[in-house]
Amino acid sequence: MQNSIKTHGRMKFAVLAKDSGSLARVCRFETDHGTVETPIFMPVGTHGVVKTLTPAELDDCQVQIILGNTYHLYLRPGLEIIEKGGGLHRFSSWNKPMLTDSGGFQVFSLAHLGKMTEDDITFRSHIDGSQHTLSPEISMEIQNSLGSDIMMAFDECTPYPCDYEYAAKSLERTHRWELRSKEHFDKLKPHYGHQQFLFGIVQGSIYSDLRAKSVEVLTNLEFDGYAIGGLAVGEPKAKMFELLSTISPLLPENKPHYLMGVGKPEDIIQGIEQGIDMFDCVLPTRNARNGTLYTWNGRIVLKQAQYRMDFAPPDESCNCYTCRNFSKAYLRHLYMNGEMTGLRLNTLHNIHFFLEVISKAREAIKAGGFSQWEKEFFKYYPVEDDHWEINTVHREERRRKHLNENDQSRQGGN
Amino acid sequence: MQNSIKTHGRMKFAVLAKDSGSLARVCRFETDHGTVETPIFMPVGTHGVVKTLTPAELDDCQVQIILGNTYHLYLRPGLEIIEKGGGLHRFSSWNKPMLTDSGGFQVFSLAHLGKMTEDDITFRSHIDGSQHTLSPEISMEIQNSLGSDIMMAFDECTPYPCDYEYAAKSLERTHRWELRSKEHFDKLKPHYGHQQFLFGIVQGSIYSDLRAKSVEVLTNLEFDGYAIGGLAVGEPKAKMFELLSTISPLLPENKPHYLMGVGKPEDIIQGIEQGIDMFDCVLPTRNARNGTLYTWNGRIVLKQAQYRMDFAPPDESCNCYTCRNFSKAYLRHLYMNGEMTGLRLNTLHNIHFFLEVISKAREAIKAGGFSQWEKEFFKYYPVEDDHWEINTVHREERRRKHLNENDQSRQGGN
Repeated sequence: MQNSIKTHGRMKFAVLAKDSGSLARVCRFETDHGTVETPIFMPVGTHGVVKTLTPAELDDCQVQIILGNTYHLYLRPGLEIIEKGGGLHRFSSWNKPMLTDSGGFQVFSLAHLGKMTEDDITFRSHIDGSQHTLSPEISMEIQNSLGSDIMMAFDECTPYPCDYEYAAKSLERTHRWELRSKEHFDKLKPHYGHQQFLFGIVQGSIYSDLRAKSVEVLTNLEFDGYAIGGLAVGEPKAKMFELLSTISPLLPENKPHYLMGVGKPEDIIQGIEQGIDMFDCVLPTRNARNGTLYTWNGRIVLKQAQYRMDFAPPDESCNCYTCRNFSKAYLRHLYMNGEMTGLRLNTLHNIHFFLEVISKAREAIKAGGFSQWEKEFFKYYPVEDDHWEINTVHREERRRKHLNENDQSRQGGN
Repeated sequence: MQNSIKTHGRMKFAVLAKDSGSLARVCRFETDHGTVETPIFMPVGTHGVVKTLTPAELDDCQVQIILGNTYHLYLRPGLEIIEKGGGLHRFSSWNKPMLTDSGGFQVFSLAHLGKMTEDDITFRSHIDGSQHTLSPEISMEIQNSLGSDIMMAFDECTPYPCDYEYAAKSLERTHRWELRSKEHFDKLKPHYGHQQFLFGIVQGSIYSDLRAKSVEVLTNLEFDGYAIGGLAVGEPKAKMFELLSTISPLLPENKPHYLMGVGKPEDIIQGIEQGIDMFDCVLPTRNARNGTLYTWNGRIVLKQAQYRMDFAPPDESCNCYTCRNFSKAYLRHLYMNGEMTGLRLNTLHNIHFFLEVISKAREAIKAGGFSQWEKEFFKYYPVEDDHWEINTVHREERRRKHLNENDQSRQGGN
């Protein structure tokens, strides 16, 4: 199979099972790095590594696919090194499927934003202040260089709150950007001999008519999968699930549905109920490093004094390396002393738990007992609050500033 | 086997092979947590964990015995937690042999020293300033609570430089302290059903007559093994090996010989040549976290730009997980981004390398070809400098201050 003549094909996708009482479903899609069975959770590997873990441990946790951050990898180590290293898979020794985001989200949330025009966005690196430009075409080029199995179209992820007028204008531009993404993607050849696929991203803020419009426009572009962006950005959680219930039924049934940046175990389960196939979030890894462990009975915050002499494992029913070998008292000791081994044992447990939850959900759907399983889950798992912990840090303020600037530039001459 | 009637036995020890051209030897000793074949290197697990690694990884690296720091563990998490957790072995899930130091070295080097008398030392914790007392008896009690397989007698580790008068006075007190250690140890019962053994520590600074005297006194106390302390503390390296060549032949042949705090690979090999059986050092773990890797061809400092696009593993001949899966370029990327996974992959490699070196030395001695093997090693491994990197940080200054204070108190009334 010659690299130079390989072109983008259609992603092989099949629905394997459907729940009778909800939109929940089990699907399968294929990449050259392996098959993914959904619903699935994707741990985040920002710098080409899932923080504190190794590929071997991800394997042990039944991780099927991870997410890499285009913005971070573009800045460090940069494309030259990744290309010469044989692409991100080989460079990072991850041989299973990988998805990359478009980089746009980090440009808006992390970088120092410069000018945003119809053509492109200029920004300064959050690391060294160096100036860069991102556009649909550049994002496609970068993701092509990274060599992810699934690339994401370039969009603007609108913040919350976002007025209708801006959301509508932004959506139109996002659609033009996604079209340009698709057109440029179609011209690119795979870099490393394996196929790449492209997902579109539905936007439209909290406005269901805009969301419906977005699904319609993007469906016509025939992406390999459809993501829902612009949720889990600070809106009330009930609002998200309400919107999801209007968007999700509109998505093409023969393509994967991906809810970006979600979430807590309870959110994932409710997302599955709404027909979502793919999830990603930094929650299990980031919170592990903050000393928080997820279990079937809820969260454990290791710094709490109640665990000082608690010599039971974090979760008696868990079969991960951490729970098989260590007590809460020991993990607390490691955490209180800043021992990295503790942070990795916490991360290992949380990733194992998230993948276990989603695997059990999958089994329940296949067995026709998803609703019953979901009820059981919520019987033991306390839902503690209704806040998004992620995606909102520093972001809202910057975005407001950006929106104001943008409003001014629109009033000025757009 | 009843815990309450178990008393301290003699450690089973055997010399398995001797080199014809040097003092190098292969020995074996037995503990209730398993047999140790020497020469051996002991990774340091300060807080009941070898930094960044898990017990499973230490197993994979053929680690036979680790060292725990009495001072640190006494302060955090404290004896109550460790005792209730079933001792340090069970608490930390390490099922192989473990040695603990006496705590004295850290009291002198890390804590805020209070008053040192013939009876005991008072000090304030480097963490919270709380006041504590350490004495030979207290050190024995603590190590008994920790439940290490090998305990160390309580001594004063004299600094370098150290005048003869102080060294001689200190040595006499150290001998009295070691006698008290032995007497108190003999009264203690094992805490957790497994036997504990006690090693004595030869002191005497750089003065060979004091060292000879120390060996004589301690040999009469019949410890289970003999450590050489007070070396690798800043003296010229040639001086250390010169002293070693006078001390080592005096040590009882039917007991393990342990050179404390050593060292670099080249030092370990030269120590083996001088009849040393056991070594410990934070070098492979600490330097791993500073981005330095040890290989058969010398050290790799990952921050150097030459590794930016070096896609070969750290050591082509190494079979560790790191070398089997990752390139120098990737490890450099992880290091430059402060990714913990990088620090653990570096540590894994370094511990694997140190254990591999010492295992090859063992094989060479058994096969009767140690001198030839040693020559081969130094043909490829560049010895870069003649400095101690470890044990001297912050230490000398504090010790000088302490010596001055002590001198004054002696002049005053001792």
